[in-house]
Amino acid sequence: MPNISKKGIDMPESPIRKLVPFAEEAHKKGKTVYYLNIGQPDIKTPKVALDAIKASTLDILAYSRSEGSETYRKKIAGYYERNSIDVSHNDIIVTTGGSEALLFTFGSIMDQDDEIIIPEPFYANYNGFSTASGINIVPVISKIENNFALPPIEEFEKLITPKTKAILICNPGNPTGYLYSKEEIKKLAAIVKKHDLFLIADEVYREFVYDGISHYSILEESGLEEHAIVIDSVSKRYSMCGARIGYLVSKNKAVISTALKFAQARLSPPTLAQIASEAALDTPQSYFDDVKEEYVKRRNTLIEGLESIPGVKVAKPNGAFYCIAELPVKNSDDFARWLLESFDHENETVMVAPAAGFYSTPNVGLNQIRIAYVLKEDSLKIAIKILAEALKVYKD
Amino acid sequence: MPNISKKGIDMPESPIRKLVPFAEEAHKKGKTVYYLNIGQPDIKTPKVALDAIKASTLDILAYSRSEGSETYRKKIAGYYERNSIDVSHNDIIVTTGGSEALLFTFGSIMDQDDEIIIPEPFYANYNGFSTASGINIVPVISKIENNFALPPIEEFEKLITPKTKAILICNPGNPTGYLYSKEEIKKLAAIVKKHDLFLIADEVYREFVYDGISHYSILEESGLEEHAIVIDSVSKRYSMCGARIGYLVSKNKAVISTALKFAQARLSPPTLAQIASEAALDTPQSYFDDVKEEYVKRRNTLIEGLESIPGVKVAKPNGAFYCIAELPVKNSDDFARWLLESFDHENETVMVAPAAGFYSTPNVGLNQIRIAYVLKEDSLKIAIKILAEALKVYKD
Repeated sequence: MPNISKKGIDMPESPIRKLVPFAEEAHKKGKTVYYLNIGQPDIKTPKVALDAIKASTLDILAYSRSEGSETYRKKIAGYYERNSIDVSHNDIIVTTGGSEALLFTFGSIMDQDDEIIIPEPFYANYNGFSTASGINIVPVISKIENNFALPPIEEFEKLITPKTKAILICNPGNPTGYLYSKEEIKKLAAIVKKHDLFLIADEVYREFVYDGISHYSILEESGLEEHAIVIDSVSKRYSMCGARIGYLVSKNKAVISTALKFAQARLSPPTLAQIASEAALDTPQSYFDDVKEEYVKRRNTLIEGLESIPGVKVAKPNGAFYCIAELPVKNSDDFARWLLESFDHENETVMVAPAAGFYSTPNVGLNQIRIAYVLKEDSLKIAIKILAEALKVYKD
Repeated sequence: MPNISKKGIDMPESPIRKLVPFAEEAHKKGKTVYYLNIGQPDIKTPKVALDAIKASTLDILAYSRSEGSETYRKKIAGYYERNSIDVSHNDIIVTTGGSEALLFTFGSIMDQDDEIIIPEPFYANYNGFSTASGINIVPVISKIENNFALPPIEEFEKLITPKTKAILICNPGNPTGYLYSKEEIKKLAAIVKKHDLFLIADEVYREFVYDGISHYSILEESGLEEHAIVIDSVSKRYSMCGARIGYLVSKNKAVISTALKFAQARLSPPTLAQIASEAALDTPQSYFDDVKEEYVKRRNTLIEGLESIPGVKVAKPNGAFYCIAELPVKNSDDFARWLLESFDHENETVMVAPAAGFYSTPNVGLNQIRIAYVLKEDSLKIAIKILAEALKVYKD
């Protein structure tokens, strides 16, 4: 029997999805499960996007251009322009989700065993994409005590080797909800310019910033044009996770022309989803205002609720719709599984994502979980109550 | 300015798409261009597939399961069953096009610098996927003189090294249209079993077989269960290239569980396109009968037309909708560009794919082109006439 690859063995399981079979089992036993583990919002997709598909008169569902349709890319450039970011449609390649934008970026700028520095905790699938691309993540730890702010810039500098090709941030952050300040971006800009590195910013949550703070994109930082690569996506912005449309944006022409070769090899991004995504750019501002108001309410309810549980520590997120909570348990992996397998409160339980999978440093974040506040306030309140009851009885 | 990667530099340009700018230029100058370069059929997508999307009542375009929805995978298993192939939905992972199925397969069974043997000429994007995956293609040349039949099995055996992990065939073949016989499949089965390799078959054109010959899938070959991986796709079968839905099929459980980790990292295949693809499985047989009849007519017209041009040699394809033609020119790359830039016959010209990009051996296939017979018969006749006129006046 032929063997699978070392790469295949090394590919991590998704910490967000690996508990799904236990949740399904709990569900079969008649338990209600509140899903706090996955960033699948319950927010409705803008009607304008869904209507565009129904109105389509295509009779051949043909390939689009490898880089995405020109009309769509021009409209995306218009979106950035309205957000004080000056890019042309030629600086944009439409991809199959932000995931593919990241894979094309890794392929375009890194070779086998090259290194990328990422503040951790970070989006768990960065581990998977790095393994798939044969590159190594060099983590720099950000701490819950500091609300997951950027670690001191000297910490980055210490980690730079001849194999370092890029620094990657997620802003605002999944799983921390941390929003980087303009000053932090400027510090990162200085270091990538000094060491001739790329700065990749995953800005898929850029619209989800709260408390009157503005998002500062790496594309707004002048002098960073040759270094900056932005990963973006329609998934969360328009609650269109299943569209699988993202894009990479860079003014570095070598990056774009190289990424285009990866794009050509896989022919084109999904055609129907591009139609929906192009229409989604006409979503009225009131939609986003409502969504933001809703998330702020949920966040406040969640943080307040978590802080009221004895022994729970939580960072206050200014963006996205996640937070990391530290629990009075030794191993949140065991705890999360126990919640599904062995616990219920009035026949209900919760599913959370153990946070260790969001770190690449071993044995860090073992007592942390990531919570996605993608449920309505009432459900969140029940979920917090369940968590509190569970922690009263759980024994490591 | 930071550098792009060696991998990025090595990524090949698509031979199918690289002439597009010249075609656009010709178009701007008012020339009519007949596109014979790309496998984008002009056949209509089945109405049942497009209607399913319009009938969808989804109000949140959510992620699907990473492996594809269960109902869809069960229906795919039913399709194979009707085609004498016994697989379960658990043997199937739905991917973003056949492209992603190949990438997941390469990642699951091969590490950096591992080798895969592929009869050439082969689908040009295998080059891109190999470069992206950091693996090496070891080509075994099949010849136009032999109609691109499988090279003698000893040719494969000579090429096997400790780094060889798999043999990959495309059946029926793009770009040759060659349909492997049951005997050829059995020979390949014997060699992969003897040397403990995987046998990957790209069977995306399995419905497009002509002249009363049957397709023999590697999944029909008993004893090959642990070795066989099939790449499949809805793109050509239902003229849904833009859906970006494919799948990998294997009874090797380690392959499926490993590929699933790659699938989880990218979250899910496109949701809308899965709805369309699931519905497409209800396409009536009459649709395929009509399509096959149409392609056979086109193929006959094309082959007859090409054979009538002095100095042109052509292999007769029994499947897919491509053929390789050898032209009386030194370099078909130059010729294809000249057709767009400098030639017209009554203000019309043709675009073809130079075949060198379908080989990985350097300097092979330089006088060959790939023609996709995806145009109506009348257009094909004009295109052949243009090609004949062009060859009369072209000078290397």
